[in-house]
Amino acid sequence: MKMILAILRDEDSENVSLALVKSEFRVTRIASTGGFFRRGSTTLMIGVADGQVDVAIQVVRQACAPTNEGEGRHATLFVLNVAYFEQI
Amino acid sequence: MKMILAILRDEDSENVSLALVKSEFRVTRIASTGGFFRRGSTTLMIGVADGQVDVAIQVVRQACAPTNEGEGRHATLFVLNVAYFEQI
Amino acid sequence: MKMILAILRDEDSENVSLALVKSEFRVTRIASTGGFFRRGSTTLMIGVADGQVDVAIQVVRQACAPTNEGEGRHATLFVLNVAYFEQI
Repeated sequence: MKMILAILRDEDSENVSLALVKSEFRVTRIASTGGFFRRGSTTLMIGVADGQVDVAIQVVRQACAPTNEGEGRHATLFVLNVAYFEQI
Repeated sequence: MKMILAILRDEDSENVSLALVKSEFRVTRIASTGGFFRRGSTTLMIGVADGQVDVAIQVVRQACAPTNEGEGRHATLFVLNVAYFEQI
Repeated sequence: MKMILAILRDEDSENVSLALVKSEFRVTRIASTGGFFRRGSTTLMIGVADGQVDVAIQVVRQACAPTNEGEGRHATLFVLNVAYFEQI
């Protein structure tokens, strides 16, 4: 099991969340702000099976709108190992 | 040291937080929303010693109200390894 | 790559964020509340190269205002291993 933390621009968060849910990933959304300009961002926590990490990242990639040149990054993804997972 | 990320229904978050604090766990609460229906949820970050993970999870389990059938899950827990921990 | 989760008192979060950004660390801010008293706190997610963890922690330490005696901790830091990192 892995935990993907995806930090997205607010304008992409809707599309990315929907695309992940359609692909049956479980998504939790957290409001965040980024860096120097305090631009609004959304942090998604996505719990995925080890074998599904690449699929989830591909879904995020495809659901992000193209940025104009010079606008900077779309999304930053951190994948963490999960030592134990349980649903109560 | 471990970090437990516990994603709870809003209606359970009060009881679970109090139960953890009473058991002397350190809890940080973050407002979140979940999945398809954007239902409000609360994400708890709980820093625990390795030997206390099972105790903390048991506290969460017992503090969640029983759900009615078909209402879905109570809580999702991800346990992460902590490489380094410091209090300043 | 490491992910530092830094849980700060609200009154330190501005200074700490600015100091980290000045040192060219990438910071994402999340509003949180802590423990028993529900005091407002800020959780920073800081993605850093392995060799920069000590530098980042030192920046956090120096940017926290001195607390009065008995006021408790400044900040709690959890450092997590990142299995995979990508910017889209």
